[in-house]
Amino acid sequence: MPGKPKRAVLRKIRLVVLDVDGTMTDGRLYYGAEGEAMKAFDVRDGHGLRLLQMYAGVKLAVLTGRRADLVMQRCRELSIELVVGHSRAKGAAIEQIAIDAGVPLAEAAFMGDDVNDLPALRKVAFSCAPADAAPEVLREVDWVSRRQAGRGAVRELCEILLAAKARWPPE
Amino acid sequence: MPGKPKRAVLRKIRLVVLDVDGTMTDGRLYYGAEGEAMKAFDVRDGHGLRLLQMYAGVKLAVLTGRRADLVMQRCRELSIELVVGHSRAKGAAIEQIAIDAGVPLAEAAFMGDDVNDLPALRKVAFSCAPADAAPEVLREVDWVSRRQAGRGAVRELCEILLAAKARWPPE
Amino acid sequence: MPGKPKRAVLRKIRLVVLDVDGTMTDGRLYYGAEGEAMKAFDVRDGHGLRLLQMYAGVKLAVLTGRRADLVMQRCRELSIELVVGHSRAKGAAIEQIAIDAGVPLAEAAFMGDDVNDLPALRKVAFSCAPADAAPEVLREVDWVSRRQAGRGAVRELCEILLAAKARWPPE
Amino acid sequence: MPGKPKRAVLRKIRLVVLDVDGTMTDGRLYYGAEGEAMKAFDVRDGHGLRLLQMYAGVKLAVLTGRRADLVMQRCRELSIELVVGHSRAKGAAIEQIAIDAGVPLAEAAFMGDDVNDLPALRKVAFSCAPADAAPEVLREVDWVSRRQAGRGAVRELCEILLAAKARWPPE
Repeated sequence: MPGKPKRAVLRKIRLVVLDVDGTMTDGRLYYGAEGEAMKAFDVRDGHGLRLLQMYAGVKLAVLTGRRADLVMQRCRELSIELVVGHSRAKGAAIEQIAIDAGVPLAEAAFMGDDVNDLPALRKVAFSCAPADAAPEVLREVDWVSRRQAGRGAVRELCEILLAAKARWPPE
Repeated sequence: MPGKPKRAVLRKIRLVVLDVDGTMTDGRLYYGAEGEAMKAFDVRDGHGLRLLQMYAGVKLAVLTGRRADLVMQRCRELSIELVVGHSRAKGAAIEQIAIDAGVPLAEAAFMGDDVNDLPALRKVAFSCAPADAAPEVLREVDWVSRRQAGRGAVRELCEILLAAKARWPPE
Repeated sequence: MPGKPKRAVLRKIRLVVLDVDGTMTDGRLYYGAEGEAMKAFDVRDGHGLRLLQMYAGVKLAVLTGRRADLVMQRCRELSIELVVGHSRAKGAAIEQIAIDAGVPLAEAAFMGDDVNDLPALRKVAFSCAPADAAPEVLREVDWVSRRQAGRGAVRELCEILLAAKARWPPE
Repeated sequence: MPGKPKRAVLRKIRLVVLDVDGTMTDGRLYYGAEGEAMKAFDVRDGHGLRLLQMYAGVKLAVLTGRRADLVMQRCRELSIELVVGHSRAKGAAIEQIAIDAGVPLAEAAFMGDDVNDLPALRKVAFSCAPADAAPEVLREVDWVSRRQAGRGAVRELCEILLAAKARWPPE
């Protein structure tokens, strides 16, 4: 089991990359007759991401193995500009994201929940998973949130970064 | 931990203001390709709000940091006329709501779940939070429901107000 | 707490009336920009209702305080012809349902979850509630399912009626 | 209670047939004004099914008592070509599926959750149910997942087959 994250590691993080399904959502894929129709995000995750940008100047990116268009509206609202979809090779994709963001992977965090996230998780300085991630992921990552995916896991990550880099709670 | 609310405080409440996401809903934001598509409200919360208006003459308002149009239909159905959206400054917004309602904040309650609700929570006579609110909010409020947001938290608030000001259960 | 239902009571039931929100669903009201957009029913509840009609010849009706049109498709699929909506006075409504069905209330069951269901619950031979009904309802009814509303409560009612009147499990 | 599945049984499975509602989903049927509008699948179930095809060469089929069109998009995405809907007689249907797939039922598995799945469950070499299946099903099947339907039950089945036939975790 991963222990408490080291403050020195948290302080240097300048880029946070997030998986979508099973990390920003609870993993449910809502399908209508035309295909995937909806995703359920969490309002407090979103608020945390906004504070992380505002108070700690952290850059955000989203990396998903599925269609990116369904997450674009949510990302736009959260001012997340780097959105990579349809990526089966997440290890290579996160390297490109780091280049595009101008932040080395040694100063990046990634949160993901499934075995296809492992190649990306292994490349970052701070690898994270929600409480209900796949066991194969929970075993490897540096930090596991107490809250579940789509129900505060991302918020918790924002809070520990804010606490180390700026302040938490705000104000 | 907040204790049992004082009956004298409950009796004077004439205005109840509610946050939406994470208070009237469980915090899930359902996004489709066109942006936010749905919110899930609770049928028993709604029934409680109707009884609170009918039997205790309490005025209702809704105060959200997000778009108000998605909640308008639900508010119309519940005869909630005061609906304020896109409000990043909830402290100032609740002051305006009190003026518009013609009820002083000393006779108002507010229920919210996240740190951006704190400025409004600090201004009212009776500050409330759902059981699954952010820890920073749970620490400060006068009263915490036993039920979760979007699953009866608002109903519970209606019941304690009805019990103090009129009667509960009805009839 | 209600005990085990008497077999003699169950055997005589020929009409089952169901509340919708909080009984056939988990009480969530999904609102889009145009108003209520969806309800979530349970597949196993539906299967139980079909078996109850087929093997025990029980008539079914639905009684809701809200719009009936959103439940019509589901009712049609389950061959439920008696659908009454917008009913604030459920006591009077269930009397009319019994007349329309040609079955006396002494041979009817009703399942509901909230205080506005009480007038109807008090009129039938066998009053039922889901495990997560309002406490005021749980206190009064003859029988409480172990499963929650929208997650098998209705199925459980079908099973005890089938066991008493025909057989359960089927075949 | 079923014990641990025998490795020899798992190794010979070349066809996996899945029920939809209550197996690939949590059993919720989302109805709009036009009828059933959505189903919620699980992202990790899907990933497991893809790996099962890729690394173990297992054929997949879907067998549902309801409309098949609502599941077609999800099945297409997962390269599931055999999709049978509107089937009230699942025992006969699974025999036809086996013929169409060119795999004998002695080398097939089926996962289902309700009593109408029993005729099909009794015909296959390896019968499976999610943790929250109907008690009548849990009693009869060879194997029960620890995870619930629509929340990883199918994924778990994929993992034990992959572990026996190829490797798990992958790579």
